[in-house]
Amino acid sequence: MVNVALDAMGGDNAPAAIVQGAIDAVKASSEVKVFLVGKEELIRKELTACSYDEKRIEIVDAREVIEMAEPPVMAIRKKKDSSIVRALQLVKEGTCDAFVSAGSSGAVLVGGQLVVGRIKGVERPPLAPLIPTLKGASLLVDCGANVDARPSHLVQFAQMGSVYMENVLGIANPRVAIVNIGAEEEKGNALVKETFPLLKAASQINFIGSIEARDIPTGKADVIVCEAFVGNVILKLYEGVGGALIQTVKQSMMTSLRSKIGALMVKPALKEGLKAFQLEEHGGAPLLGLNGLVVKTHGSSKAVEIKNTILQCQTFKNQDINGKIKKIIVKEETSL
Amino acid sequence: MVNVALDAMGGDNAPAAIVQGAIDAVKASSEVKVFLVGKEELIRKELTACSYDEKRIEIVDAREVIEMAEPPVMAIRKKKDSSIVRALQLVKEGTCDAFVSAGSSGAVLVGGQLVVGRIKGVERPPLAPLIPTLKGASLLVDCGANVDARPSHLVQFAQMGSVYMENVLGIANPRVAIVNIGAEEEKGNALVKETFPLLKAASQINFIGSIEARDIPTGKADVIVCEAFVGNVILKLYEGVGGALIQTVKQSMMTSLRSKIGALMVKPALKEGLKAFQLEEHGGAPLLGLNGLVVKTHGSSKAVEIKNTILQCQTFKNQDINGKIKKIIVKEETSL
Repeated sequence: MVNVALDAMGGDNAPAAIVQGAIDAVKASSEVKVFLVGKEELIRKELTACSYDEKRIEIVDAREVIEMAEPPVMAIRKKKDSSIVRALQLVKEGTCDAFVSAGSSGAVLVGGQLVVGRIKGVERPPLAPLIPTLKGASLLVDCGANVDARPSHLVQFAQMGSVYMENVLGIANPRVAIVNIGAEEEKGNALVKETFPLLKAASQINFIGSIEARDIPTGKADVIVCEAFVGNVILKLYEGVGGALIQTVKQSMMTSLRSKIGALMVKPALKEGLKAFQLEEHGGAPLLGLNGLVVKTHGSSKAVEIKNTILQCQTFKNQDINGKIKKIIVKEETSL
Repeated sequence: MVNVALDAMGGDNAPAAIVQGAIDAVKASSEVKVFLVGKEELIRKELTACSYDEKRIEIVDAREVIEMAEPPVMAIRKKKDSSIVRALQLVKEGTCDAFVSAGSSGAVLVGGQLVVGRIKGVERPPLAPLIPTLKGASLLVDCGANVDARPSHLVQFAQMGSVYMENVLGIANPRVAIVNIGAEEEKGNALVKETFPLLKAASQINFIGSIEARDIPTGKADVIVCEAFVGNVILKLYEGVGGALIQTVKQSMMTSLRSKIGALMVKPALKEGLKAFQLEEHGGAPLLGLNGLVVKTHGSSKAVEIKNTILQCQTFKNQDINGKIKKIIVKEETSL
């Protein structure tokens, strides 16, 4: 059984969509148990009308809520009875294998490190979402957890990202590339120039060199390594350019009677095709390298995304990702 | 008369498309004279079949060509008789007002600084392309000239970018924003945190704060300030996500007979609508802050882009952009 602590109070659609996601998850998999953490009366209200296996959904009362705008470190330290801190403690004490939240990214990142803690040897835990490409999806590490990271951090991001892609997505020998502003080794800023030879020398990854941002959406690499500021820009620009283009496509098709009729005819196919290019379709972003799994899902997550993220936790546990990360990090440490 | 030195040997479609662009430009404007710099016999061959005002197209023979893969500093120093160096010298000596090239970015950037030189007081000249948004276009400074820039450089980028947008695009009081990973002032990496208060204090710009990458395509700011590594990622990801999405749209519409028929009906409107979202539609990128105008156009530029870039040089000169940049930089220096 995989036990998942779920932040019932986090995200734009909490608690209704979160609770619904939990119900859908336990229906979809008999191996999942969900601990709904948050204000008991609100959670119970959402649950009453529904039928589900009561042995596999448990409510854990938490009286406080960490808001999106709160400074994360302060919030984690002060709000001991918040849904995020209580849920993280369930992971820390071993009751749960994983924590899932659509709430404050900052609080999830800080809480993950302060409450659950890092795997021995891991210097920084990166946030690693899957981003859509023409060939499927690539893992973007780090998309926002550690700004101004050091070269040694990026090498670990590459190693942990490779374990994830190989075992969760089943991609053998995943191609690792570092985001750069040119294909040649001598290109780049100080961080990339210093990191490049370290990645080249790292024995346990399939490093293919630099990747220019224009080649990320074509799926040229499976693990895209970068510092968190750059990663965050990539993730958010994906969303921004995608949104603007889809809006442009829609508006263009409304300009004449002819195009309007055409639009009706292409709509179903277009909707289906563009679905694969939406970030939300690719589940939550794990914070790699912690003693337990911590997953941040989009603030706008609906029930289906919550369900998918819970099922993702099952794969993560069954494939023993953390055991494999421990091995690769320890091996690297002893070889130094 | 505006005299433009044009690198006839640079870009994927040189010299044919470049020469054609020059002919189209002198036809479109009676105020333009073009100096075609490169191998005379090749240029002459392209010109023979065409009719044009011979007083306004002049060939300047240059026997060497700087290739795309050459290390820029070495190439500029050694190849004194290259089309890029010879054309830059025409600007340096005052024969020409502007230099336009679709050739090696590195060589244009290095050559611009080494041969033409910076305006007194300008610390670093940024490369500043216009990028498409839902509201028109924004200026991205810097998209690749100065990696690992300092805060004071970014403040000058904001000032020079404002002059450009106000005078070339006619946007009164252009909104300036710094690329960041959150909207709050305390967010960001070390560079952004240090630059933010300086931009806030700068008197001659309309600084509106941070911009997240997702808001760039919506046109939330007119001048987007960032360090060159981040700017290059933004520019290239625009291209990459745009290309991948358009490919996805096309493929989706080919999946059924119904969608194929619809595709025929929406195609003209779609083509027109998406045109505005293509980087090539927005001309070349000027290197701001040099003693003369240096413009880099896309390597894949066709005649129409070369023509538009030459006409852009006319606006740049007529609006006395460099005179205005000198004033704003000197004023800032004396006020310190």
